[in-house]
Amino acid sequence: MRAVVLLSGGLDSATVLALAREQGRECHALSLRYGQRHAAELRAARRIAAALGVTHHEIVDLDLSRFGGSALTDASIAVPEGPGHPDAIPVTYVPARNTIMLAIALGWAEVLGAGEIHFGANAVDYSGYPDCRPEYVAAFERMASLATKAGVEGRPIRVCTPIIELPKAAIIGEGIRMGLDYSMTVSCYQADDEGRACGRCDACRIRREGFVAAAVEDPTRYR
Amino acid sequence: MRAVVLLSGGLDSATVLALAREQGRECHALSLRYGQRHAAELRAARRIAAALGVTHHEIVDLDLSRFGGSALTDASIAVPEGPGHPDAIPVTYVPARNTIMLAIALGWAEVLGAGEIHFGANAVDYSGYPDCRPEYVAAFERMASLATKAGVEGRPIRVCTPIIELPKAAIIGEGIRMGLDYSMTVSCYQADDEGRACGRCDACRIRREGFVAAAVEDPTRYR
Repeated sequence: MRAVVLLSGGLDSATVLALAREQGRECHALSLRYGQRHAAELRAARRIAAALGVTHHEIVDLDLSRFGGSALTDASIAVPEGPGHPDAIPVTYVPARNTIMLAIALGWAEVLGAGEIHFGANAVDYSGYPDCRPEYVAAFERMASLATKAGVEGRPIRVCTPIIELPKAAIIGEGIRMGLDYSMTVSCYQADDEGRACGRCDACRIRREGFVAAAVEDPTRYR
Repeated sequence: MRAVVLLSGGLDSATVLALAREQGRECHALSLRYGQRHAAELRAARRIAAALGVTHHEIVDLDLSRFGGSALTDASIAVPEGPGHPDAIPVTYVPARNTIMLAIALGWAEVLGAGEIHFGANAVDYSGYPDCRPEYVAAFERMASLATKAGVEGRPIRVCTPIIELPKAAIIGEGIRMGLDYSMTVSCYQADDEGRACGRCDACRIRREGFVAAAVEDPTRYR
């Protein structure tokens, strides 16, 4: 079966792609150049797509930095270092970004005749992001079934979120079991041009703690 | 109140913008350069935005022609001339296009603090398009309330579709009542570079019949 896989270049989406390949999916990887702070993430996505043998990898341009409103798309908003309030939505939240990415994936999936979109959302570590929760994904899936010719004709496109309930250490455990090389991935919100991580932002902190909890050596290159 | 208004340059979205202005909304118009067959539509959107006094008009680039799958985004698929089967989804359906446009509008609305997205979907004339139906719009709105910080914090962004149940003649009647100059608008799927309509595609046929039924002189420039 064909599947569109959202691939950011980070640890989570790389694991989701590896799981989809393990399940025998014909994978069409989709990345979005949306005006994020650095290009290292997209270079990582290219490496991962090639290493895991995707059928095709599309990097789509959509400049969300013209809207701003997030530390990831507006250079004047600093990426926080150190943990924030556990219940607050962090300033790294990009308004509607996951909805936009899933919508583009939905269009491509329908053209390809793909039955699934694989999406590396995680509700455990990033509990502050509304668009990483299972109830959001279910609502997107329902909307998508009404939006598309595929849905109307009884072939609704599923949104698969295999790691949404997993702690980081369990995600890493899955990747290690499949032989995934996490040194290819870049999670840091503010990696430098060589893809080296800051070690201080939320994404770095959660990733590092995940390797510790999984008792796996952290292959991340820090600067 | 601030509103994001989806503005294609056609008759329907121009009427929706005029209605939003009449209701006193501070309008932020959003158009998408998605790889449609002609640029006349976007030039029309610019004229309409200026004439109706929007606060801001953004034309966002997102190339859906790389995916194809529609007569509007793939030059190798002809635009049908003459009526198709009334129950079939026409080849001018662009997979997930409305979902993608609404998703981008949702992101912009959240950054702007806008409470509404105004969307010129119509379920009467284009009954074949799944993403023009009220049940689709309701499902999008529900998904959006779960997707966004605004929704989670109790300020969900509404999707307003004031013409969704109106026949074309009634839409035109509303526009005429407000003094809207429809000669600015371009509905044709295959307008030429000067914005002149073919007079034969579905969009032209429905528009022309609307002017006849409204007993309003058709200001469309045909080639």
